[in-house]
Amino acid sequence: MPDFTPSPEDRFTFGLWTVGNPGRDPFGEPTRAPVDPNYSLEKLSRLGAYGVSLHDDDLVPRGSTEAERDAIVARFRRTLDDTGLRVAMATTNLFTDPVFKDGAFTSADARVRAAAVRKVMRAMDLGAELGAGVFVFWGGREGAEVDAAGKLLDALAWMRDSLDWLAAYSEDQGYGFRFALEPKPNEPRGDAYLPTVGAALGFIQTLERPELFGVNPEFAHETMAGLNFVHAVAQAIDARKLFHIDLNDQKMSRFDQDLRFGAENLKTAFLLVKLLEESGYDGPRHFDAHALRTEDEAGVWEFASGCMRTYLILKQKAERFAADPEIRAALDAYRVEDAGSSELLAGYTRERAGRLAGLEPDHASLAARGPGLERLDQLTVELLLGVR
Amino acid sequence: MPDFTPSPEDRFTFGLWTVGNPGRDPFGEPTRAPVDPNYSLEKLSRLGAYGVSLHDDDLVPRGSTEAERDAIVARFRRTLDDTGLRVAMATTNLFTDPVFKDGAFTSADARVRAAAVRKVMRAMDLGAELGAGVFVFWGGREGAEVDAAGKLLDALAWMRDSLDWLAAYSEDQGYGFRFALEPKPNEPRGDAYLPTVGAALGFIQTLERPELFGVNPEFAHETMAGLNFVHAVAQAIDARKLFHIDLNDQKMSRFDQDLRFGAENLKTAFLLVKLLEESGYDGPRHFDAHALRTEDEAGVWEFASGCMRTYLILKQKAERFAADPEIRAALDAYRVEDAGSSELLAGYTRERAGRLAGLEPDHASLAARGPGLERLDQLTVELLLGVR
Amino acid sequence: MPDFTPSPEDRFTFGLWTVGNPGRDPFGEPTRAPVDPNYSLEKLSRLGAYGVSLHDDDLVPRGSTEAERDAIVARFRRTLDDTGLRVAMATTNLFTDPVFKDGAFTSADARVRAAAVRKVMRAMDLGAELGAGVFVFWGGREGAEVDAAGKLLDALAWMRDSLDWLAAYSEDQGYGFRFALEPKPNEPRGDAYLPTVGAALGFIQTLERPELFGVNPEFAHETMAGLNFVHAVAQAIDARKLFHIDLNDQKMSRFDQDLRFGAENLKTAFLLVKLLEESGYDGPRHFDAHALRTEDEAGVWEFASGCMRTYLILKQKAERFAADPEIRAALDAYRVEDAGSSELLAGYTRERAGRLAGLEPDHASLAARGPGLERLDQLTVELLLGVR
Amino acid sequence: MPDFTPSPEDRFTFGLWTVGNPGRDPFGEPTRAPVDPNYSLEKLSRLGAYGVSLHDDDLVPRGSTEAERDAIVARFRRTLDDTGLRVAMATTNLFTDPVFKDGAFTSADARVRAAAVRKVMRAMDLGAELGAGVFVFWGGREGAEVDAAGKLLDALAWMRDSLDWLAAYSEDQGYGFRFALEPKPNEPRGDAYLPTVGAALGFIQTLERPELFGVNPEFAHETMAGLNFVHAVAQAIDARKLFHIDLNDQKMSRFDQDLRFGAENLKTAFLLVKLLEESGYDGPRHFDAHALRTEDEAGVWEFASGCMRTYLILKQKAERFAADPEIRAALDAYRVEDAGSSELLAGYTRERAGRLAGLEPDHASLAARGPGLERLDQLTVELLLGVR
Repeated sequence: MPDFTPSPEDRFTFGLWTVGNPGRDPFGEPTRAPVDPNYSLEKLSRLGAYGVSLHDDDLVPRGSTEAERDAIVARFRRTLDDTGLRVAMATTNLFTDPVFKDGAFTSADARVRAAAVRKVMRAMDLGAELGAGVFVFWGGREGAEVDAAGKLLDALAWMRDSLDWLAAYSEDQGYGFRFALEPKPNEPRGDAYLPTVGAALGFIQTLERPELFGVNPEFAHETMAGLNFVHAVAQAIDARKLFHIDLNDQKMSRFDQDLRFGAENLKTAFLLVKLLEESGYDGPRHFDAHALRTEDEAGVWEFASGCMRTYLILKQKAERFAADPEIRAALDAYRVEDAGSSELLAGYTRERAGRLAGLEPDHASLAARGPGLERLDQLTVELLLGVR
Repeated sequence: MPDFTPSPEDRFTFGLWTVGNPGRDPFGEPTRAPVDPNYSLEKLSRLGAYGVSLHDDDLVPRGSTEAERDAIVARFRRTLDDTGLRVAMATTNLFTDPVFKDGAFTSADARVRAAAVRKVMRAMDLGAELGAGVFVFWGGREGAEVDAAGKLLDALAWMRDSLDWLAAYSEDQGYGFRFALEPKPNEPRGDAYLPTVGAALGFIQTLERPELFGVNPEFAHETMAGLNFVHAVAQAIDARKLFHIDLNDQKMSRFDQDLRFGAENLKTAFLLVKLLEESGYDGPRHFDAHALRTEDEAGVWEFASGCMRTYLILKQKAERFAADPEIRAALDAYRVEDAGSSELLAGYTRERAGRLAGLEPDHASLAARGPGLERLDQLTVELLLGVR
Repeated sequence: MPDFTPSPEDRFTFGLWTVGNPGRDPFGEPTRAPVDPNYSLEKLSRLGAYGVSLHDDDLVPRGSTEAERDAIVARFRRTLDDTGLRVAMATTNLFTDPVFKDGAFTSADARVRAAAVRKVMRAMDLGAELGAGVFVFWGGREGAEVDAAGKLLDALAWMRDSLDWLAAYSEDQGYGFRFALEPKPNEPRGDAYLPTVGAALGFIQTLERPELFGVNPEFAHETMAGLNFVHAVAQAIDARKLFHIDLNDQKMSRFDQDLRFGAENLKTAFLLVKLLEESGYDGPRHFDAHALRTEDEAGVWEFASGCMRTYLILKQKAERFAADPEIRAALDAYRVEDAGSSELLAGYTRERAGRLAGLEPDHASLAARGPGLERLDQLTVELLLGVR
Repeated sequence: MPDFTPSPEDRFTFGLWTVGNPGRDPFGEPTRAPVDPNYSLEKLSRLGAYGVSLHDDDLVPRGSTEAERDAIVARFRRTLDDTGLRVAMATTNLFTDPVFKDGAFTSADARVRAAAVRKVMRAMDLGAELGAGVFVFWGGREGAEVDAAGKLLDALAWMRDSLDWLAAYSEDQGYGFRFALEPKPNEPRGDAYLPTVGAALGFIQTLERPELFGVNPEFAHETMAGLNFVHAVAQAIDARKLFHIDLNDQKMSRFDQDLRFGAENLKTAFLLVKLLEESGYDGPRHFDAHALRTEDEAGVWEFASGCMRTYLILKQKAERFAADPEIRAALDAYRVEDAGSSELLAGYTRERAGRLAGLEPDHASLAARGPGLERLDQLTVELLLGVR
């Protein structure tokens, strides 16, 4: 049996805020002490990670002077060098500070919108300085509980203006960021703007420079909306917009749980790993989750190690799935290629339309045919459970 | 008190399948007899509707001969003329026939895909003959329960090919349809492809002729995914893609209920009507719902009448909301325009970036400010309840 | 138009933690300053409330000395006297302290279980001292994310032991509390034990003194599980177990929102008020909600006032519903009393069984009959909207 | 590797309606032909099942004469004898017939209530004749969409009357049935009465003969409400009320899917099998699910076989879990028995209360302790995936 020990080639990354999560929740005080980001780098390096991601405030506490900031960053860069870890993604915390309580880019207060854009500029400076290639936007407070306030259309316009402005800043500074919008349906706001991967894909097309923007789908966020995460990732891949990905887990249609990858939906996690690996996605495998609040520090590193191990186990399962003769036979039987039909749909011509109109499908036979999906699914389950 | 009696100027339309719904469900036999579409036209006309919409099979039963079809259509056109009703939207039933049990445009069987495109061609012919301006695609069977079948990316490509082909057919025939994709998260399939308004908006941008395509958001469908329907419609309006709309109601995160408009979420229904009326949407107000299975025919017309009455009541509420001095004051207080901030974000320049970087927001004041949303929301509730 | 100003006769109560909520959430820092409980009493008194409820820690901060505690309590009692407010309900905070992070009564650590029971004893002493008649158990941390830990059956037994022990303590001290279990499906735990009103009702029957225990249903909690709150309250009333009630609001199947009463589900709120008023419930109308995090202090009192006003508006609607002749006619028509049928089911006898077996129902007529529910529901909606 | 071939000793049963499901859904016609129940017996017998369950109408079509009924039953009994299969559970279809469209036991029409009780009497006669020991009540139509109809409390009373009456009938006839209430939150009704296992447990205590009644929890039904099915089953076991169980699968918070057991929630399925096997449950392992509508007959038997195989695989996993030394060590470490604490809680005495009041828990140590749950859960996942 392989040992499923991760290595940097696997491109696993963790948010500093994930292994640094103190276990605070709406009903309880922290259960773990704050963690020095440099310590996290050392631990993650030893566990086999490739890199980290960060919000501006994860590294540089709000209120730091410029000198403090520079010292913190310098020390962090040294630890990156020492450990060989990379900063693969950077982002901005626009949700903790009460200033942004009713939105950052979408605040009804123009002064708050300006403060938000300013904070992102500085977060971009930091991200660029640390070598991040992807810059994520998660608009934690961009949403509403009171839609009677009547700013829905304005909010979309304000968000667009901010993103256009910041993309121009990045280009002007030569940062070369690829931007990834991270959707979430709700929490902390009653309803978030751009709630799903689809909504973000649609919105990108209204921006000035859509080619600079993609998505950062998160397993838990799409699952909170009761949606199939693998379908969402497939649509992002289809649109060539999968710029980054957040791996974790979650029960459907409930509060944001950020569980260890593979902790809940094993089959969906398998199908996701299979899709990522087979589609040629070459970005970070980024874990945005945290240890349960019940855990002490030892539990945190078990959590981090578990995320990576489960990914590798599922990756091996995907390889075995592809090689399994019975499964291959079931997959082949599932698809019916019919040259005549395919040719008719290969592109519209009036002549093809005429031929298609005259086609008489063998209705009874098409209706009766069984695609063998129960069998294929059972084979998949048994492969997952390790009994084939 | 106004009488809230609808008239054709209100542009209310009903699917033939809605007032014709026989009250069958997964656990029970029909409770109502089939309805002659011509009878439905007469009744709807008397109730004040503007028009109807239809699936091909709603009017012309599958298996009809050409002669039968023509006779049915001719009689229906006469009734349209007699009643003055319009066919505002046409669509195709690609979900009832077992041939399409594992998808129509996205079937893994090329022959089924061809049969599906062919059926839509003929439905377009019918829709054009009846004068429909909008053609809706609801892919009831486009989805999956067994993602191990591995066709996710192919399915999106097949759907794109079919839509491109059919748009070309419409243009070539001079039908001039505007196409509206109707998303739904699940049911009857375990997971539907293009599950949300956002997903449809994103997908449209990958089509050959995106300008021909918009969306047909449905209240119940977005609500099934626990999403805020008003937000989804706002995004469609923002993207200039609101081509049609399906009005009904639904409890969140459960089976497709298709309740009478306003039956469940009164506040959301109000906010929706307010958005539609104030944004200048001029398409049909289309009800895609049905009477409860408990009801007899009298209940069907109470249902239809109720949908329209509630819309008109809420429209009047929106007008009163706009005119209410306390509400206007609360709305004004909510927004803070700040010329300096707005100018900085008006468009990126390096000079503005420099000034923004130097800005020092008055953090304490911005954090402390209360936007008055509890008060605004309470005023809204009291206006809705008719006590202001 | 009546003015809907609350008075103590309306028996409205608020948790100290509700108007004192500082607006902290999982993603953000507090937006409001801590509130002195005495100040809350004064404000609530002026708004027309009847009383308050409290967790032990809401009044006496953890870590207070006995002398500090006594001084705090004495001052609070004076303010109660000055304002005329009552403490109607007391409870224990068993969720904030990290000691209880993996359960209090259901911790796998016997020492934690003892600490939990001890804390409740002292909370009971406080509640009794302040005159509370109802003592609520909300087991915020009684639940699990990792069921592989295998303690499900033990957890139920430990919870039973604790409740039995504490009920005996209350009786032995002569406190005379009526105990109310408050269910919640999840959050902060992945899954809570006793997740619904039904689960609590079932569990009570396994206790030593079931007659001392009832339930404290919460609107938001039942709604989080996608359940109909009015049905849950009806079952509690049917079982004579409605000892207390928590009023607030919430979108279905998502995180715990604790919205202002009536903010989201107006129709359900109406049906609930109607049920409470008509069933003779005479306990507190207790609001367990909080102002949106966006709000400042002014918003807090708008929130509190809004909860009470909406209740009173809906109470008046219930009276008008009962008096509306068309609605009464629809309700009468809905019910079919048939003396013969009723007699057969009035209680089993062998003779009745024989007659029932021989009965031939008029199948066609029963199947065809329409109950008029669409009409009744539309009348209800129009009454709610104030247009009848 | 074991072969996971089922045998009657495993006590697997299937509803006749499950393997006989024709693949009809709200949006589509049947995709499979009706199945002769005798044929189902033969097939299930060959696959290794122990028995079947049935609704009255599954075997004897509505409208059959007495002579037809007797012939059908006689033939079925012969096939039972030939195959060695048992009828383990019987129930009544009170949901298909339009007569029951607005409720059976809870109809507002007394004549319908009588017709419902009469139909159950006859279904009991049939069940007794076929040797069923458990009789299930699933009230498919017991619920409402329009709560303004005001019958909530009456409905519970009517349901109680019917159940009391029918239990008396069973006892009077000497049938000796154990009755199992099957809860479901919604669908086909907007909201079902007694929506959860907990609600049923609570309701049973209000019946005349509670000892005759237990529950029949269904995996999909509890999961539709976003509840943890294993927790619900544990509560039923704790209350000694697990009389029967329905195994299938489902995504949370959506329409009733009735998927193959283990098709979706592998970890929950594992925890359920573990609980059933370890708690000594000795009733049928009853599958209430059906093949996907996409499937032909071959898919139906793959489905049936897959349900049983997955159960057996998970049962073996449970045995390996119990035997795994690392897992056992983690489980042991998780529990902290403390004789002093346990003694204090062993039962209330005034003396113990005094000692408990004086206890000073070592707060810092209890708060800091990590229970090792991330590690235990990861070990569980790896065991499930077959890599340990």
